[in-house]
Amino acid sequence: MSELDIYASQGFAGRAGFGKKSALVIVDFVNGFTDPAQFGGGNILDAVHRTVEVLAFFRASNLPVAHTRVVYAEDGSDKGVFCRKAPALAQLTEHAAGSQIVPALTPRAGELVVRKQGASAFFGTSLEGWLRFQGADTVVIAGCTTSGCVRATVVDAMQHNFFTVVMRDCVGDRAMAPHEANLFDMQQKYADVMDAAQVMAALKPS
Amino acid sequence: MSELDIYASQGFAGRAGFGKKSALVIVDFVNGFTDPAQFGGGNILDAVHRTVEVLAFFRASNLPVAHTRVVYAEDGSDKGVFCRKAPALAQLTEHAAGSQIVPALTPRAGELVVRKQGASAFFGTSLEGWLRFQGADTVVIAGCTTSGCVRATVVDAMQHNFFTVVMRDCVGDRAMAPHEANLFDMQQKYADVMDAAQVMAALKPS
Amino acid sequence: MSELDIYASQGFAGRAGFGKKSALVIVDFVNGFTDPAQFGGGNILDAVHRTVEVLAFFRASNLPVAHTRVVYAEDGSDKGVFCRKAPALAQLTEHAAGSQIVPALTPRAGELVVRKQGASAFFGTSLEGWLRFQGADTVVIAGCTTSGCVRATVVDAMQHNFFTVVMRDCVGDRAMAPHEANLFDMQQKYADVMDAAQVMAALKPS
Amino acid sequence: MSELDIYASQGFAGRAGFGKKSALVIVDFVNGFTDPAQFGGGNILDAVHRTVEVLAFFRASNLPVAHTRVVYAEDGSDKGVFCRKAPALAQLTEHAAGSQIVPALTPRAGELVVRKQGASAFFGTSLEGWLRFQGADTVVIAGCTTSGCVRATVVDAMQHNFFTVVMRDCVGDRAMAPHEANLFDMQQKYADVMDAAQVMAALKPS
Repeated sequence: MSELDIYASQGFAGRAGFGKKSALVIVDFVNGFTDPAQFGGGNILDAVHRTVEVLAFFRASNLPVAHTRVVYAEDGSDKGVFCRKAPALAQLTEHAAGSQIVPALTPRAGELVVRKQGASAFFGTSLEGWLRFQGADTVVIAGCTTSGCVRATVVDAMQHNFFTVVMRDCVGDRAMAPHEANLFDMQQKYADVMDAAQVMAALKPS
Repeated sequence: MSELDIYASQGFAGRAGFGKKSALVIVDFVNGFTDPAQFGGGNILDAVHRTVEVLAFFRASNLPVAHTRVVYAEDGSDKGVFCRKAPALAQLTEHAAGSQIVPALTPRAGELVVRKQGASAFFGTSLEGWLRFQGADTVVIAGCTTSGCVRATVVDAMQHNFFTVVMRDCVGDRAMAPHEANLFDMQQKYADVMDAAQVMAALKPS
Repeated sequence: MSELDIYASQGFAGRAGFGKKSALVIVDFVNGFTDPAQFGGGNILDAVHRTVEVLAFFRASNLPVAHTRVVYAEDGSDKGVFCRKAPALAQLTEHAAGSQIVPALTPRAGELVVRKQGASAFFGTSLEGWLRFQGADTVVIAGCTTSGCVRATVVDAMQHNFFTVVMRDCVGDRAMAPHEANLFDMQQKYADVMDAAQVMAALKPS
Repeated sequence: MSELDIYASQGFAGRAGFGKKSALVIVDFVNGFTDPAQFGGGNILDAVHRTVEVLAFFRASNLPVAHTRVVYAEDGSDKGVFCRKAPALAQLTEHAAGSQIVPALTPRAGELVVRKQGASAFFGTSLEGWLRFQGADTVVIAGCTTSGCVRATVVDAMQHNFFTVVMRDCVGDRAMAPHEANLFDMQQKYADVMDAAQVMAALKPS
């Protein structure tokens, strides 16, 4: 039996679908994750470019938008285990160039900007309650990296019982094998993995 | 540049190390995950067998032990998005054979048994605070599946700032490609991936 | 300036209102909290009796209902700091008479029964995500004690951005001074405090 | 039976004690909470003054210190239910005078500064994991208001299984009746309420 067969035989990869109102969550599309000399590489820039249209669509549809940034304190006071595994994270401070959201996706007034130190956009942040206050029961996810903060955010979104959608062409990673492996895991267990075009078609007012 | 090279060039895969007191967390080693007709397959049984010695070591060392089970309500009242992606999960009820911990690892009095509906052993459970009350700052993880509840538990353990160790030979998955891909991700970003023998050597009283 | 005057002058006690869909959360109306020899006393029985009609209303309106119970493990493995302050809590085990929901409010199939070890119905439980899956953005609270688990649940509900309503005549306490003091705090800062009759009138389909 | 008698007869007000390492958490001692025209009044200034010595003690003892501030986004994007009950909270933005920590307690490099939108210092913040990384199992609490963010922080600290101590003379409120009522609740159920002098004596190296 192939590996895909065992998942199919055990009933994975069901479709969760959309709920009543979708929010766009853009994970860590900041300068430092588009620069291969810092945390970037792979297909991340392609994912940023594809997200520009999606962001415009959500804004035009008057749907909620949240952005995340990794932000550590300048004095290093909030470094933890994550910085042991990846010490360069601590350079992403409030005013560092690497932690600013990429110019093509600059947040507008009224969009939430989440500062986080963990992997998941939900961990130790106000994102969950903010989405409730916006009336959103569905989270559509773009960002990077697929195998890192996107995956962690998707698992938490599902655990919070958000209908969770990952846009395959709007998430990126510094390396393609982890990107593909994590899209597989997410589609099997946590989220509906779709193209951005499919998502926009599904959300288009009829 | 190879995929491993880009991780190395960006400073990933640092060593987090052990803290002052380690707890063993055994994720979802229940009958249903050892049975390929339900959720099992791959190398899960091997991982169960290897964990027997580790559990004995932690007990002999008087270190805290926690076990997790997936448990849904008999009336289906607590089903959520996870059961849309994997509907068979809802069969894992309190008294179902499939949700009982495997006989070789039966919990003893004083060991925590966590009932969970999500992927992570920490999500919507009392595990985090229980570990604090035991004085444990380090989590050593066995269980299944590597690409599912183990990975989710590891990410949360790291986010809670536990020193997090995954025992490579005590975690298993229904399919080997996701197993290997997730060991890679965890070692690069979230946890120290070690053999059980290395862990027991490191924790042995001098 | 009187104490009420300073709250008024600083703009507290705004009205939060109802959202689109309300759920009833009944906190710890279990036998042990109606028995003055265990954790009961004061006006708790009156609050139970008043809740009977409210529960019938929510069921007739096909709105979600959740109940909470305090449940500790028989082997004492999950006792923590709360049991240092109130050691008798550890007697509330799965099958103890004291931890069964009072007969007048027995849960029906499809209603969530939350087992908790903390004060808040949200802490270390699946309640938050369950309410999202039910589509509820508003939490209407009955239960006991006003100064204990009701207050803790209300603060968390507000922090999760639920519109939060406390039914003054459906919450009770073993002592009246803490009951009144906590109704005051909740009304000033966290929730709309209303009579059950007002709540049912507000939620009645027009 | 008096109200105190019923608590005593039911076994409340046990002593939780200190663990191995204590951290000081100073809740919302910011300018806006010392100004009666904004959120202050009552005995808050007295509590600030008393905390100066305690902060010096923790610094001299090389024990961890965390401060909290209420900080809302300038564009109002993160306002929620709390701002419906207390609309003036939204004025506490990053650079507002009212949200700066009082000069007498200015944080030093290495001390954590928690920005929060909720009542509890733990809700939607990194405080819990930060305390683990500092090795602290005990939380000693100063701040304001006793009936608001201090109470919410204390309940969460206890639920996370921190040994939790409230310094009676280092917490303050805009009104004395809620101050006293909440000290009563916390001492009965969640924390050890002590004078600052007792705390410093207990933590003094022998």
